[in-house]
Amino acid sequence: MTQTPVRIGLIGTGRIGQVHAASIAASPETRLSWVADPFIEGARSVTERFGGTATESPEELIASGEIDAVLIASPTPTHVDLIEASVRAGLPTLCEKPIDLDIARVDALRPLVQSSGVPVTLGFNRRFDRDFAATRARIAAGEIGDLEQLIIISRDPAPPPAEYIAVSGGIFRDMTIHDFDMVRFFLEDIVSVNAIGTRAFDAGAQRHGDFDTAVTTLRAASGAVATVINSRHSAIGYDQRLEAFGAGGMLQVANAPTSLVSCSTAAAVDAKPAFGEFFVERYMQAYAEELAEFVKVVRGDTSVSPTFEDGRAALILADAAQCSATEGIEVSVEE
Amino acid sequence: MTQTPVRIGLIGTGRIGQVHAASIAASPETRLSWVADPFIEGARSVTERFGGTATESPEELIASGEIDAVLIASPTPTHVDLIEASVRAGLPTLCEKPIDLDIARVDALRPLVQSSGVPVTLGFNRRFDRDFAATRARIAAGEIGDLEQLIIISRDPAPPPAEYIAVSGGIFRDMTIHDFDMVRFFLEDIVSVNAIGTRAFDAGAQRHGDFDTAVTTLRAASGAVATVINSRHSAIGYDQRLEAFGAGGMLQVANAPTSLVSCSTAAAVDAKPAFGEFFVERYMQAYAEELAEFVKVVRGDTSVSPTFEDGRAALILADAAQCSATEGIEVSVEE
Amino acid sequence: MTQTPVRIGLIGTGRIGQVHAASIAASPETRLSWVADPFIEGARSVTERFGGTATESPEELIASGEIDAVLIASPTPTHVDLIEASVRAGLPTLCEKPIDLDIARVDALRPLVQSSGVPVTLGFNRRFDRDFAATRARIAAGEIGDLEQLIIISRDPAPPPAEYIAVSGGIFRDMTIHDFDMVRFFLEDIVSVNAIGTRAFDAGAQRHGDFDTAVTTLRAASGAVATVINSRHSAIGYDQRLEAFGAGGMLQVANAPTSLVSCSTAAAVDAKPAFGEFFVERYMQAYAEELAEFVKVVRGDTSVSPTFEDGRAALILADAAQCSATEGIEVSVEE
Amino acid sequence: MTQTPVRIGLIGTGRIGQVHAASIAASPETRLSWVADPFIEGARSVTERFGGTATESPEELIASGEIDAVLIASPTPTHVDLIEASVRAGLPTLCEKPIDLDIARVDALRPLVQSSGVPVTLGFNRRFDRDFAATRARIAAGEIGDLEQLIIISRDPAPPPAEYIAVSGGIFRDMTIHDFDMVRFFLEDIVSVNAIGTRAFDAGAQRHGDFDTAVTTLRAASGAVATVINSRHSAIGYDQRLEAFGAGGMLQVANAPTSLVSCSTAAAVDAKPAFGEFFVERYMQAYAEELAEFVKVVRGDTSVSPTFEDGRAALILADAAQCSATEGIEVSVEE
Repeated sequence: MTQTPVRIGLIGTGRIGQVHAASIAASPETRLSWVADPFIEGARSVTERFGGTATESPEELIASGEIDAVLIASPTPTHVDLIEASVRAGLPTLCEKPIDLDIARVDALRPLVQSSGVPVTLGFNRRFDRDFAATRARIAAGEIGDLEQLIIISRDPAPPPAEYIAVSGGIFRDMTIHDFDMVRFFLEDIVSVNAIGTRAFDAGAQRHGDFDTAVTTLRAASGAVATVINSRHSAIGYDQRLEAFGAGGMLQVANAPTSLVSCSTAAAVDAKPAFGEFFVERYMQAYAEELAEFVKVVRGDTSVSPTFEDGRAALILADAAQCSATEGIEVSVEE
Repeated sequence: MTQTPVRIGLIGTGRIGQVHAASIAASPETRLSWVADPFIEGARSVTERFGGTATESPEELIASGEIDAVLIASPTPTHVDLIEASVRAGLPTLCEKPIDLDIARVDALRPLVQSSGVPVTLGFNRRFDRDFAATRARIAAGEIGDLEQLIIISRDPAPPPAEYIAVSGGIFRDMTIHDFDMVRFFLEDIVSVNAIGTRAFDAGAQRHGDFDTAVTTLRAASGAVATVINSRHSAIGYDQRLEAFGAGGMLQVANAPTSLVSCSTAAAVDAKPAFGEFFVERYMQAYAEELAEFVKVVRGDTSVSPTFEDGRAALILADAAQCSATEGIEVSVEE
Repeated sequence: MTQTPVRIGLIGTGRIGQVHAASIAASPETRLSWVADPFIEGARSVTERFGGTATESPEELIASGEIDAVLIASPTPTHVDLIEASVRAGLPTLCEKPIDLDIARVDALRPLVQSSGVPVTLGFNRRFDRDFAATRARIAAGEIGDLEQLIIISRDPAPPPAEYIAVSGGIFRDMTIHDFDMVRFFLEDIVSVNAIGTRAFDAGAQRHGDFDTAVTTLRAASGAVATVINSRHSAIGYDQRLEAFGAGGMLQVANAPTSLVSCSTAAAVDAKPAFGEFFVERYMQAYAEELAEFVKVVRGDTSVSPTFEDGRAALILADAAQCSATEGIEVSVEE
Repeated sequence: MTQTPVRIGLIGTGRIGQVHAASIAASPETRLSWVADPFIEGARSVTERFGGTATESPEELIASGEIDAVLIASPTPTHVDLIEASVRAGLPTLCEKPIDLDIARVDALRPLVQSSGVPVTLGFNRRFDRDFAATRARIAAGEIGDLEQLIIISRDPAPPPAEYIAVSGGIFRDMTIHDFDMVRFFLEDIVSVNAIGTRAFDAGAQRHGDFDTAVTTLRAASGAVATVINSRHSAIGYDQRLEAFGAGGMLQVANAPTSLVSCSTAAAVDAKPAFGEFFVERYMQAYAEELAEFVKVVRGDTSVSPTFEDGRAALILADAAQCSATEGIEVSVEE
């Protein structure tokens, strides 16, 4: 608490960049030092609100000598180059998921990251959600015996615009990748992926050959099976549930209520308001905790999680799911 | 199971009489032998459906020599005389609550019942509800430590007709009396009663000087406090809940769901169908268990519950509540 | 209600046969007339309790002239021959699932059933569960818009004996077949099946090459996707849940509570007793309703459901699942 | 948002004073300008953390000319004098409850407050809890028809120290006073109070003639009845529930979950972690909203709530409850 705040250079000021800027400003452990965005108005809007120097140039930010760490929240195609530059500058780096849509580019970057000794962590914020983390800890403590089945229900409130779908890499690399990381958070050593996808409602998915609905099953080396159920829309709001079924019982994570009020009338009893929020609100605590963990890493803690390797592994699962859904076969994976 | 069925003489064929007739017929342990009702069509309708001999005369039933026990489900003003006749005939008797609306008549009957050795049990069926009984057993087993507060919420779906209100003895003697027995089921030695009543909606209660809404608090000798919350109507259906709060935690009995289906839409999540039923449906299992316990008593089991004394004690509490609500004072009681 | 009871000939007096015998005896609409089992003690035990004539010979039962309908609850390998005999005798038939483990035998019987005009209905009792039925009706009424995802969680309390596993036809034909029928109850025209199975815990499954854990995804022609999650054991008891997710919301069927009591202490709040029962208790109401519907069919109602064709279709899905799980491919099906 | 922050002078730096200091510092609308506490280390500790000038003297704070409003969080006996000084200085004032333990002192101050035109608001923070506020708004919108019964369950995790009990004014003036304000938030024109109190467990209450358990029923002019159930301890943690029962249904406010995780094993299903927190955590959002509303008042908004009159009315109810519990009579009140 009495340590000098970690000076963060933030690259990218879109929605998720703004979430991180607010977290950085709110924590006494961090200071927003530089903000880079080629769309300079975006960068300036952030520095006006939360402090720091605005620039169009990520290179200038990295070379500024005024930052202790880099947070990359720019569009996916820029991630690999920015991680490389940041690592070469010796700056601990937190990069939003995914590393890239192309595993070849990830693999090309991998030796540098591995040999550099510079910590690189991935923005799989759900690992820091207190309820998912508590569930994992309780399983590890043996509360439900061996984990045999994991069910993740993950549905967004509404599909993104068609133009976003076009460049997203598809539902598995864009949306399910968070769930794949969750699967890996609970189950090590996934050995195969079996996915099906359909187009049930979204014109954007239809136009760009993507799916709006998907179910993916994954086998772990232990024999456990994970099932991920996705939809790009949900009338009741952001739907984020998890069920861990073990030999001795089960742990379930419910949706976060938006109200403690329930209404009972002759028409229906115990009715509660719908889940009106999206990931920024749902995972606010997780983003703050993610940043707090990153601060520890910047200060020398070596237990980085999730790592670059975790980012790569999730992408491998997403690629396998895409292949499985397209080919109608179960796809073996090796991490 | 292989014993000869107990032959029951049923007096009274109104709603509750018909419930008992069905229970008697459904159990292999009992046989409906005689049915008496001055409204002979009622008696005949029951015997046609469930067997037995119909008569207008309870005296004929008691004197028939073909019954092992009497079940009294006739109107309240007849209870005292019928219990007397039945006990004098040496027949174990199950009488619907209340014994009478006038404690003086109850007290006049009391010596005979006490000296006769003939078991008389009262129809406080809720004691036999498996969930109330389980809650009591779990408290006795120490699961929540010393019981400090008991809350009973008891609301009927809709008020009875005004003509029924007129002869009912008032909400405390007619409706709350069941809850008073529940209080005594959980807490012994009630020492004072504090009740308020209002007329919030029911024209019948208004016309006949009764209440349609009441809250009663009762102190036990142990220092524990019970609160009974009543309403003569409930838009969501029959509302029967209980909360037992102890030094180490609490046990709650929820309403019985009428469906396992819940509906979630943008308007509301987790909405379930309302509670459409009334006491016959809600306490079906309790009525059957009450009869099974009565059979044991007829066959010689001496652990009669609830007893004539329990019936008298509940009436004393109802009288005290009526007095308290009318006078605005806390009323001491001595059992 | 005033019609002559339908006289039922029951074949098979194992666990499920006894369930049906009790249902038949309890209903005023039916009478248990003949009971056949080569294990004659079984048949006699049933007739002693519920009435009827016992025989070792199903043929004698069918030829007795004293029955209006046949209920087949004998071992699976006998089903095809008994349906054939019953249909040839012109007797409406209710047969337990599955018709057979071999689709070739089913197809061989099919022309006779189709041309006979004799109603044959299959014992997929879950269709008659009031909550599943209500959910289907509410979807049909448009309450949640187009159905896009169906999730069925179906876990047995404990695995059957290894010797049962050996002749069961495997988890998909033995256990999941009920869930496949449920999928078809909600979604018509399944076009492909994608299943994975693992052996997580059961030595019997291990020994006989069966699975104890399975996840099956099925596509409907509409684009909707169903996911069935199975386990042969469940520490919390019989686990039977369903979630129907549509464009406008979702309907969920919860497990049936075995108690209305919840306990809250410093250790945990809102804890309820586990689900201690198995299918006989869970689906008691469904079995009674199934029988009631069969009575209507015997009396001439032509809206038979589920039909022989439904039994055949579920087996086709089970075969496809077995193939998919073994081969690691998605299997197309045509009903 | 672009307005100059309101400069607050905070008097008192005990637990609740520190809560307010943190809220003031966290809001862009407010600045902590001066902090007064005779225990000067307390004041300095707060200013070091959140800014502002520390003083031993509330008078110096009020006379500083550097504050726009006063927030009084000092011990109850100082409230009347401090409100008077603050109002005489023309400074809008937010004072923690209760105004005083002695209604005579409150009444003596009343003319000054009424004639001054200076807004004085009371710290009944629960009015700003989003769920209680939403419930009130939904009742006002007619969602459950006329309000007939209000039930408030309010239990603290553990009793305060005996020395606090000694000067607290008793459970009704110290603890239930929040619930009395809630009753008045939902029901206007309370006409009588009927309370009972017992000593079930707390030695401090025993020693100082206080109660540790209480049930209070209040009648509104409308005929509605409110029931407040209190305990000074609760093994499951802070227990804050409300049920509003109307002619057309009911609205219930549940306890705030501390986790979204539920655990199911053979021992119990659906068990959730206990409610570990107390009012600071439970009403964090309400405190922030209370401050935001006070800022509006400072800036000229005239819809002050709750007012000095609300503070006085709650004390009148507490006095009446104390009298009722002691005398065993229902006590009429006139606001």
